[in-house]
Amino acid sequence: MSILQTLILFSFLLSASQASVQDFCVADLSPPRAPRATPARRNISNLIKAAVTTAFVNQFPGLNGLGISLARLDIAPGGVIPLHTHPGGSEVLLVLQGSICAGFISSSANTVYLKTLNKGDSMIFPRGLLHFQLNAGKGPALAVVSFSSPSPGLQILDFALFANNFPSELVEATTFPDDAQVKKLKGVLGGTG
Amino acid sequence: MSILQTLILFSFLLSASQASVQDFCVADLSPPRAPRATPARRNISNLIKAAVTTAFVNQFPGLNGLGISLARLDIAPGGVIPLHTHPGGSEVLLVLQGSICAGFISSSANTVYLKTLNKGDSMIFPRGLLHFQLNAGKGPALAVVSFSSPSPGLQILDFALFANNFPSELVEATTFPDDAQVKKLKGVLGGTG
Amino acid sequence: MSILQTLILFSFLLSASQASVQDFCVADLSPPRAPRATPARRNISNLIKAAVTTAFVNQFPGLNGLGISLARLDIAPGGVIPLHTHPGGSEVLLVLQGSICAGFISSSANTVYLKTLNKGDSMIFPRGLLHFQLNAGKGPALAVVSFSSPSPGLQILDFALFANNFPSELVEATTFPDDAQVKKLKGVLGGTG
Amino acid sequence: MSILQTLILFSFLLSASQASVQDFCVADLSPPRAPRATPARRNISNLIKAAVTTAFVNQFPGLNGLGISLARLDIAPGGVIPLHTHPGGSEVLLVLQGSICAGFISSSANTVYLKTLNKGDSMIFPRGLLHFQLNAGKGPALAVVSFSSPSPGLQILDFALFANNFPSELVEATTFPDDAQVKKLKGVLGGTG
Amino acid sequence: MSILQTLILFSFLLSASQASVQDFCVADLSPPRAPRATPARRNISNLIKAAVTTAFVNQFPGLNGLGISLARLDIAPGGVIPLHTHPGGSEVLLVLQGSICAGFISSSANTVYLKTLNKGDSMIFPRGLLHFQLNAGKGPALAVVSFSSPSPGLQILDFALFANNFPSELVEATTFPDDAQVKKLKGVLGGTG
Amino acid sequence: MSILQTLILFSFLLSASQASVQDFCVADLSPPRAPRATPARRNISNLIKAAVTTAFVNQFPGLNGLGISLARLDIAPGGVIPLHTHPGGSEVLLVLQGSICAGFISSSANTVYLKTLNKGDSMIFPRGLLHFQLNAGKGPALAVVSFSSPSPGLQILDFALFANNFPSELVEATTFPDDAQVKKLKGVLGGTG
Repeated sequence: MSILQTLILFSFLLSASQASVQDFCVADLSPPRAPRATPARRNISNLIKAAVTTAFVNQFPGLNGLGISLARLDIAPGGVIPLHTHPGGSEVLLVLQGSICAGFISSSANTVYLKTLNKGDSMIFPRGLLHFQLNAGKGPALAVVSFSSPSPGLQILDFALFANNFPSELVEATTFPDDAQVKKLKGVLGGTG
Repeated sequence: MSILQTLILFSFLLSASQASVQDFCVADLSPPRAPRATPARRNISNLIKAAVTTAFVNQFPGLNGLGISLARLDIAPGGVIPLHTHPGGSEVLLVLQGSICAGFISSSANTVYLKTLNKGDSMIFPRGLLHFQLNAGKGPALAVVSFSSPSPGLQILDFALFANNFPSELVEATTFPDDAQVKKLKGVLGGTG
Repeated sequence: MSILQTLILFSFLLSASQASVQDFCVADLSPPRAPRATPARRNISNLIKAAVTTAFVNQFPGLNGLGISLARLDIAPGGVIPLHTHPGGSEVLLVLQGSICAGFISSSANTVYLKTLNKGDSMIFPRGLLHFQLNAGKGPALAVVSFSSPSPGLQILDFALFANNFPSELVEATTFPDDAQVKKLKGVLGGTG
Repeated sequence: MSILQTLILFSFLLSASQASVQDFCVADLSPPRAPRATPARRNISNLIKAAVTTAFVNQFPGLNGLGISLARLDIAPGGVIPLHTHPGGSEVLLVLQGSICAGFISSSANTVYLKTLNKGDSMIFPRGLLHFQLNAGKGPALAVVSFSSPSPGLQILDFALFANNFPSELVEATTFPDDAQVKKLKGVLGGTG
Repeated sequence: MSILQTLILFSFLLSASQASVQDFCVADLSPPRAPRATPARRNISNLIKAAVTTAFVNQFPGLNGLGISLARLDIAPGGVIPLHTHPGGSEVLLVLQGSICAGFISSSANTVYLKTLNKGDSMIFPRGLLHFQLNAGKGPALAVVSFSSPSPGLQILDFALFANNFPSELVEATTFPDDAQVKKLKGVLGGTG
Repeated sequence: MSILQTLILFSFLLSASQASVQDFCVADLSPPRAPRATPARRNISNLIKAAVTTAFVNQFPGLNGLGISLARLDIAPGGVIPLHTHPGGSEVLLVLQGSICAGFISSSANTVYLKTLNKGDSMIFPRGLLHFQLNAGKGPALAVVSFSSPSPGLQILDFALFANNFPSELVEATTFPDDAQVKKLKGVLGGTG
């Protein structure tokens, strides 16, 4: 078993939307990829302006059974890691460069925890709770995040609602937005139904 | 330690919004409570038309350390248990009466699993994933759900976004709805900011 | 992996004695099966008058890794789920119909916890402890039970002692009944030795 | 926290029956105690002729959180550790002196595993399953057992059925012995009801 | 419970030797502390030339129950994090600046895994195994490490052998160095006995 | 699955050094093996004078999934189980014969816990911490040890440092002995580099 490996580039945006959207590329880890030109991908690029490079067990088999994994976040000015959860693990974040506004919402009481983090600051996101990271500065922001599982999973809220074939009438019946709003976001994120 | 107890009524809607919204009351478990008349509570009543009666460790201390808990779902015609997650446990549901349309969305691939369940049907909702239950029939629906934890937690999407002081500009920046939509749902669910 | 399935009928009596003994069949889940006519099976039918329909991981593969499983208990008037343990998980029971007398015996101190449960009542049976359920009413009783494991296991005391080839002299030396009693119960339950 | 301690003598018979019944005393670990003279205790002494000296977390606090505990078994000629379970842990046994016949019964299939063990032989008893140890030789037998938990618990079948106030009619309804048999064993083991 | 905190400076050298030895201080996280002048501390400074800043549960209570913790490593040119283990968790390391030679030794087979890591490279150190990190470049090296536990613990080999009152004759009898060597290293590291 | 097995002889010295060094053989468990005559093996024999007979999951497959394993220690007069760790489990030791001096060193504070144990005495060694056992009497010592894992692992300090190809310059840079000392111990234990 190979326990010793270097990080392999993997964008969750890629896996979620089957499209390359690394607007803010990690220069020394992999060559930039020219994004192909479908409207959905262009829309997502404009929304996100960020890349997540994961070393989960799928990319880094040496992690198997060791209860931990790692990722780096690169967020361009104006970029955001949208509201999401990790169903399988807690997350700890350490800012390496720039300024990040991060937050999560607690279970049951729905309390919102917000914090602006600068270089050297750290924040915990407990397992399974909705959270986000946003570039709060003028230059690029860089952070490393670590998870309490080799496969923490990832569920991005907007992708779960609007980037698949979840029927619009069920989205509306279970989350209460207007039909026009649902149709608009499905258009942006490439969803159907 | 008292290991032997009967179910104590507890509505998650109550705990989330500090308001009584048990439109469809569990007749033999607790007396109906007359809902007070604030607009937010009335709006939620019209949206939900359902009650969840939990036997989590907080209500049922004998569950402590035993890795399990229970709840019953009562969903009136037209009612819904809105999209939500349990950060701390998987859920299994068994329909006892009526017809329920249930679904969840998988991690990473965002695949939507939908199923109409009738009396005697069962369905699994893996830990931490977004899921919902909807009355799919003309009469009341009743189900029992069980969790792989004495304290599975509960995060209802709309309450996490719109029933607290999560700043509208951050909701918009991290989930991409229009400002008018956010303001409207905050109005319905009693949120501010 | 199929995560979505409906309950498959499975009687633990069937698996334990290799005979069909569903006296009180679950009408909407499976067709009744005509019991074959050996004396042992007839004897067990008269003793038990109950059926357990499990959704353990063997019958419901989607439960794998999710830490939970489900079963329903149907107990005819005069019927009983005999004293047994689940070596692999705790159990929570919810009465849906009728009246059930249930009990378990604690570890070390051997304290007996007994309770008569009616519709809507719930009770916990901690992992690995001897417990039973008995129809305490005049009509049929129905309950749903859930376990803190996808494969909680089942060890029915009388089957462990008298329905196999456990030598009578060892049964007597380790549990202290009379030889005639052991021989009689082996006769009823189909054991040898 | 004191992590370093020597074994403290503790007889499970003592805790179960509130009586000293160490017929076969562990000479160098504790002084023998003169058994008091009630009929129940004398009866148990004649049945058991064995002592269990445990180092569980209650007697040996340094075990807390470490996932392990230890006990020694001293079984006089003709003695037996009666059929019992450990709800909280698996057991491994190593014979140090003499000859022991040991066995357990599997979950679901009720298969009986029997083995005569001599000095240096080892056997596993999986968590929660009924098992026993019996002196199979002419001299005293000595074994050390270890558990996969600091508090594995102990439920001796006969004590759970006959050494407490478990009502005879419920014992009979859930385990199917004759009333006379139940009354007789309650007499031997000091039970009531 | 405060879940949201920034990193608190904590040097394991400090806790191990009761002396401040942060030769290579983390400029933006805490002010440098002037090391006091005992010979042992000066010796350790010359040996180590590194600082570890931990965010374990003791310094960062929000980590409690979340299965993860974080630390940063600052290693000056010629510096080293000496051979050590974390008894309670696996470690993943990500190099942020400079060049680090890292290694660990496997259980049982004693295979040595060595790797020179540059910026962006990552390496896993499985729970409980001896490992080290060494500055392999000419400038300062910086890395972030994360652990699969909120309290992974730390046992530095030389401190365990030579910085306490472990009797020299026992050190020699159980690890086989010469007496002069043990006395010399006890002198360097401040041990006695 | 075979759950029932007797102990199979396995020496960790054998696996570590690829040589038979059972100076103090377990007479009734396996035939003595004539040690082959390389200098390294002779040196180790003179250092250790002890044998460990393990029943880990590799030798005893019935332990799989049961959270426990067992070993016996035979230590000749003047013999020692050298300083080592078990990365995967805590250990509890029970002295059966003779007198043993045992010790472990705590995490972080490096406190040394030492104890002389006689027949019937027990001691705990928490997971992952350095510990040793030494014959403290004039005759042979015998102990049984149990672990909180079916595969606790074993890392003997001297074998990790000096019985492989760990480069001497890295041993010296990360543990601070003299070069001559490292070369000498590599010579004794058969290491290279």
